[in-house]
Amino acid sequence: MINRVVSADKTATIKILQQPSNHNWIETAIANLDTILLDHSHCERKAAGAAINLMFRYPSHQKLVYQLTAIAQEELSHFAQVNQWLARRNIPLASLNSPPYFSQLKSQVRHAEPDRLVDLLLVSAIIEARSHERLGLIGEYCPDPELGKFYRSLMASEARHYGIYWVLAEEYSDRSTIERRLTELGEYESSILATMHHEPRVHS
Amino acid sequence: MINRVVSADKTATIKILQQPSNHNWIETAIANLDTILLDHSHCERKAAGAAINLMFRYPSHQKLVYQLTAIAQEELSHFAQVNQWLARRNIPLASLNSPPYFSQLKSQVRHAEPDRLVDLLLVSAIIEARSHERLGLIGEYCPDPELGKFYRSLMASEARHYGIYWVLAEEYSDRSTIERRLTELGEYESSILATMHHEPRVHS
Repeated sequence: MINRVVSADKTATIKILQQPSNHNWIETAIANLDTILLDHSHCERKAAGAAINLMFRYPSHQKLVYQLTAIAQEELSHFAQVNQWLARRNIPLASLNSPPYFSQLKSQVRHAEPDRLVDLLLVSAIIEARSHERLGLIGEYCPDPELGKFYRSLMASEARHYGIYWVLAEEYSDRSTIERRLTELGEYESSILATMHHEPRVHS
Repeated sequence: MINRVVSADKTATIKILQQPSNHNWIETAIANLDTILLDHSHCERKAAGAAINLMFRYPSHQKLVYQLTAIAQEELSHFAQVNQWLARRNIPLASLNSPPYFSQLKSQVRHAEPDRLVDLLLVSAIIEARSHERLGLIGEYCPDPELGKFYRSLMASEARHYGIYWVLAEEYSDRSTIERRLTELGEYESSILATMHHEPRVHS
């Protein structure tokens, strides 16, 4: 389970993920590492696209624009790195259908502002947190030591990203409302993953 | 007018823009430099988004994916730099309505593959070529020498980008077909700009 210390003077931690991944997920992922690697490539491109779309929707929100520019740049850099790993393992680039995870999470986004912006940021925070957890599991269990090292090297960025999305959300609502909503969305996210998608994906 | 040497053994050059910008455009741009700077910021974000969208549509086209990743990274880096210029001149980030240029160009994209991909790449090539020309004009006529220097520094990238889009298009059709289509689209593009849009924009 992934925690984050909210502030230096607070000893309590807040859970951004309500449930850790089921062990079946990592077993399936390791047994289908090439597919997971390809799906991970798509995830990085999608993450860059999502950051750019948010900037497109909120072009006058300076802090958001500055921070999401940096995130999008980092996601594209990871995308290029994962694609190098695909080439190295002779896995051709190919389309893969998305697990229902993303559309289901998106369905929870409220329509009125500023709820919409808050939810979009928190959904991104949760996706990044789950990626952080799962890429970390791949880093731990990967049979290829070098690929495992690569996955562990990505973890710090994913953790930074979910922190940025979370802290940005606090710009648009008060902290206790954000914490409550994060718990709601986090519970929903765990419920999506409780029934594993039949295809091996990072967010199965 | 902007030319590109097609290959080292060919002395002829190919025009990617059919008409140079009207002098009225640069006069309007310099008289509305703050708006142009803001619009330019949007253009860089849009260019990054367009590259990512193309990768989303053609995820298995390896050469395209590799080269557009690099372009998207560079556009995001320019986006951040332009935003720094906006901050320096105390211009707040804000939305701006788009000139009809982009949607009109997009309306020319054919629907059947591989024509669609070819047209998407050539339209991007033309947009980059026009940006190259116009940012160069700003670099030349800008009353702020440092800002002018910044604009001139961007020109090499824009020229490289339109070259990349053009050469990528040649992966999906033969060179003479590409040249013919590029002329058609270039003529259409010049016709859009013949009547200047009433608001100051990079692509007015």
